[in-house]
Amino acid sequence: MEKDYSYLNEERIDGVDIFDGKVVHLIRDSVRLPNGNVGIREVIRHVGAVCMIPVFENGDVLIERQFRYPHAKVLLEIPAGKLDSKGEDPLDAAKRELFEETGYVADSFTLLGELYTTPAFVDEVIWMYLVEGLHTVDDKQHLDEDEFLTVERIPLDTLCEMVMRGEIPDAKTQVAVLKAKRLMDERKK
Amino acid sequence: MEKDYSYLNEERIDGVDIFDGKVVHLIRDSVRLPNGNVGIREVIRHVGAVCMIPVFENGDVLIERQFRYPHAKVLLEIPAGKLDSKGEDPLDAAKRELFEETGYVADSFTLLGELYTTPAFVDEVIWMYLVEGLHTVDDKQHLDEDEFLTVERIPLDTLCEMVMRGEIPDAKTQVAVLKAKRLMDERKK
Repeated sequence: MEKDYSYLNEERIDGVDIFDGKVVHLIRDSVRLPNGNVGIREVIRHVGAVCMIPVFENGDVLIERQFRYPHAKVLLEIPAGKLDSKGEDPLDAAKRELFEETGYVADSFTLLGELYTTPAFVDEVIWMYLVEGLHTVDDKQHLDEDEFLTVERIPLDTLCEMVMRGEIPDAKTQVAVLKAKRLMDERKK
Repeated sequence: MEKDYSYLNEERIDGVDIFDGKVVHLIRDSVRLPNGNVGIREVIRHVGAVCMIPVFENGDVLIERQFRYPHAKVLLEIPAGKLDSKGEDPLDAAKRELFEETGYVADSFTLLGELYTTPAFVDEVIWMYLVEGLHTVDDKQHLDEDEFLTVERIPLDTLCEMVMRGEIPDAKTQVAVLKAKRLMDERKK
């Protein structure tokens, strides 16, 4: 039976909206802490997102390079994107983002689990998929006018070594590469 | 030789401070996109953090349960904490957080790499350590008055199975468990 950890819970007292932008919706709530004190919680509300590791039969992975302004550098990341709205089916979003960013469609999407990127102050959930049975429709990207990223193929084994050497900082890419590698190694047994 | 991806870069034009809170420092910048258009980037500036997976000789991991207000639930997470200041040595922070949250000190801290939690809109970097040679000083937590978390021991192999089944959503915990497991399996070879 699940143990009861509800004695750790925090109860909302009240809150204010701080900022509602293009990506970031920031609120600040007062909460009742387990010891009865009042605490402050700053929270970024996010619509949610999907990411996916598309793997070809020969073990190559479709992967992207994208400039990430907060870190002021180009990062190696698996395809990903925001949900269109809070209630969107993550699988629909995954299919859309794969096609827009890479020009590929796929026969098989296996959910690898959810990812909470920053549970301390962001409520974002990323649904993560292993994508197989890839085939190209027109082999070109269908990006928004102001979206810039390149796509290339790198073997899963190479990506796994890069993750282990600390060469791929992006969290979702590290998780997806390590999970996909483990899953595919288990299948071979 | 590294390929040149600087054609993906975005250049800051100007920006405003939106909010400077307890955890969240939010700015909004105008940027010049690769196609010459102007884009908006909302960025959370964060001081940086450390996390660590403390593994005993028998394979048990010290792990925590903590209420995470953005997700309104108690999560299973490895020990972690913010840097005291932007320039703090992550190793010092790791030693401090381990002692405060678990009451343990350790002989060995191995850097497992950096983690960018949310490169789209947060600049947070988490330095991740494998911690071994654990010994307790007084076997009790030294938490801030308003900090609440419980500590327990779960075998690394169990945690790895939980991650693979999608039962541990926290991103840093997924990465640390999968990396530590892979590293320790490689050592046995």
